[in-house]
Amino acid sequence: MNNHNLDALHTLDTPAALIDRSRMQHNIARMQQHMNALGVRFRPHVKTTKCIDVARAQRDAGAQGITVSTLKEAEQFFAQGFTDILYAVGMAPHRLQHALELRRRGCALGIITDGVESARAIAAFGKANGEAFEVLIEVDTDGHRSGIRPQEGALLDVARVLHEGGMHLRGVMTHAGSSYELDTPEALRAMAEQERSGCVLAAQRLRDAGLPCEVVSVGSTPTALMAEALDGVTEVRAGVYVFFDLVMRNVGVCTESDIALSVLTTVIGHQAEKGWAIVDAGWMAMSRDRGTQKQKRDFGYGQVCTVDGTVLDGYVLSGANQEHGIVSREGKDEGKDKGEGEDCTGIAARFPIGTRLRILPNHACATGAQFPEYHAVSEAGDVQTWARFHGW
Amino acid sequence: MNNHNLDALHTLDTPAALIDRSRMQHNIARMQQHMNALGVRFRPHVKTTKCIDVARAQRDAGAQGITVSTLKEAEQFFAQGFTDILYAVGMAPHRLQHALELRRRGCALGIITDGVESARAIAAFGKANGEAFEVLIEVDTDGHRSGIRPQEGALLDVARVLHEGGMHLRGVMTHAGSSYELDTPEALRAMAEQERSGCVLAAQRLRDAGLPCEVVSVGSTPTALMAEALDGVTEVRAGVYVFFDLVMRNVGVCTESDIALSVLTTVIGHQAEKGWAIVDAGWMAMSRDRGTQKQKRDFGYGQVCTVDGTVLDGYVLSGANQEHGIVSREGKDEGKDKGEGEDCTGIAARFPIGTRLRILPNHACATGAQFPEYHAVSEAGDVQTWARFHGW
Repeated sequence: MNNHNLDALHTLDTPAALIDRSRMQHNIARMQQHMNALGVRFRPHVKTTKCIDVARAQRDAGAQGITVSTLKEAEQFFAQGFTDILYAVGMAPHRLQHALELRRRGCALGIITDGVESARAIAAFGKANGEAFEVLIEVDTDGHRSGIRPQEGALLDVARVLHEGGMHLRGVMTHAGSSYELDTPEALRAMAEQERSGCVLAAQRLRDAGLPCEVVSVGSTPTALMAEALDGVTEVRAGVYVFFDLVMRNVGVCTESDIALSVLTTVIGHQAEKGWAIVDAGWMAMSRDRGTQKQKRDFGYGQVCTVDGTVLDGYVLSGANQEHGIVSREGKDEGKDKGEGEDCTGIAARFPIGTRLRILPNHACATGAQFPEYHAVSEAGDVQTWARFHGW
Repeated sequence: MNNHNLDALHTLDTPAALIDRSRMQHNIARMQQHMNALGVRFRPHVKTTKCIDVARAQRDAGAQGITVSTLKEAEQFFAQGFTDILYAVGMAPHRLQHALELRRRGCALGIITDGVESARAIAAFGKANGEAFEVLIEVDTDGHRSGIRPQEGALLDVARVLHEGGMHLRGVMTHAGSSYELDTPEALRAMAEQERSGCVLAAQRLRDAGLPCEVVSVGSTPTALMAEALDGVTEVRAGVYVFFDLVMRNVGVCTESDIALSVLTTVIGHQAEKGWAIVDAGWMAMSRDRGTQKQKRDFGYGQVCTVDGTVLDGYVLSGANQEHGIVSREGKDEGKDKGEGEDCTGIAARFPIGTRLRILPNHACATGAQFPEYHAVSEAGDVQTWARFHGW
């Protein structure tokens, strides 16, 4: 899947965020086919890319609706014709006016809550403004972050506040974010089942109490890909699968050669005695994400590849300052010798000044966010500029 | 120094990057006075803020010229009337054309190099284009990153390539970035002296060889503030001092109440049994920087303050997802009990939904970069919007 015509990659200024379009399309197809096989709708989380071009490719492949993490994302995608949007962060009362405006402009914006206090605020604001907000209740299936546990009494309390307050109670949603901490197929399959069964239990409790629950929404990239059955689930959400990254490689749901996002960089210096090549991708380009630090393989700030995308096994971005990165042998900073002998003395010969490299990121969501645009490279080597947006 | 009129801070959307203008002016005055007392020019590094309004305040206080880490920064500041600019990242040959264009438009852009190979590229390109680039040689005084050690033969080789190649060899520069790893006044003073003496030695070697060396430029925030004498130095560079941050607090060159940058956030939920309040500042707002992780006090993703800026000692942003942060008692995640009893059960009462908080960042350069603009708050409570730029 490496690119053959590299002319464009030698003229782009660096650092630059590259998308390997062929890998991206492969990742999109893999997820969509799995969702189709499991008989659920797929609603990609666009917080990973914040890019209309990527979301269109997901929609073209069969995605139905999108998930967002900010109302700015909702605005940007709505402006480009995406109308079915789930805002999947607990609704803050001060944002209800903005949500109302989006809905009045024709956006089918869904919102979420996990507490009686905010449910009351939603119902009161909705009633005062004649708006039946579409609301999902966030369920906690893994203790990871937000949500009400499926068995808790508060689940029905929140549901009643919304339903009896005249809101459109759509159903339940959960995100098993702790799947990122796992790294075996067995554990991931078990977490996918835990996510599914917990969310389905919450839905059943609502229905048993005579409350509506049309939507049962689950998802994270690892659980979505590893789920073997999704009985009772109506839709799945996932984001990072579209690019993948080294964290997902360590979790075990992709390989390095699936990773569609990389940072193009240029060698600008050497510290030959240390076995270092200095590149112009520092943490401002890679982000400060060190998500592989505690995983089974620590890639520093990223895995080094040649400009055509071939992994240079054993070379990582071992250090990063704001606009400087250090390319060296993996583990060298920790004093482990992985045979760096000839590489140390020959680093300047191996990576002369001006050499272009690609760095695979630890975390695609964080790395992408450092760039105002992606350069999307086709297998033929042509490059399109795809804008992404920034901020709130 | 806390703000008294908080109306604006209750209407801004969150997360938002706040600058406490009074603290910022205090930080600017402190550094400039110290530089004046030591008899050196001060050239602030604008990579921290990427903000014209902040750079103007630094210039108004007496700064002479600016330091940048990208040519985009050079372009942006040059467009706003800053003409004396040092681009303090090793010059990549493919950027020489851009540097030439900046100089032809009237920008007094200085560049740096630390190797014979790139010095030759600079001289060849300059000669071919009739341009005597102003060049400083980067000196390595602490083994931290780039540069030629003061005693190395390569120092004179690079100098001769530039000087004999018709370039304007201006002098030498160094950055003792390893000062960030220290945390006692004695060690910082020693590092400041090591940075000074190493750079002065390099300058002396050039002069002894009959080569020009007008500029002797040193600096990092910790060494600049702790230097007791700067004999032989002509200018100092530093960046993060203008805002400070928790890393600098741990290094020992500021206190929490000097930190001028914070992230305004809103409480959006609770996990009361865990003692968590969920806020809308996650790692997208704070950055993934965990710079205090290995320092003497680990602040997680940041120190929690009330909306008026009062430090809530013991409350930190202990976890972060993309748009979710977890406010809890310090150390709680590691199982240490620091008396969380009433706070755990009372977290929802203490921080109700909608509560506004400020989070002090680990690393101001990284946190600022997540935002398209700052909200600069005066002591009277009025708020100005100051743009900052993004990308390369």
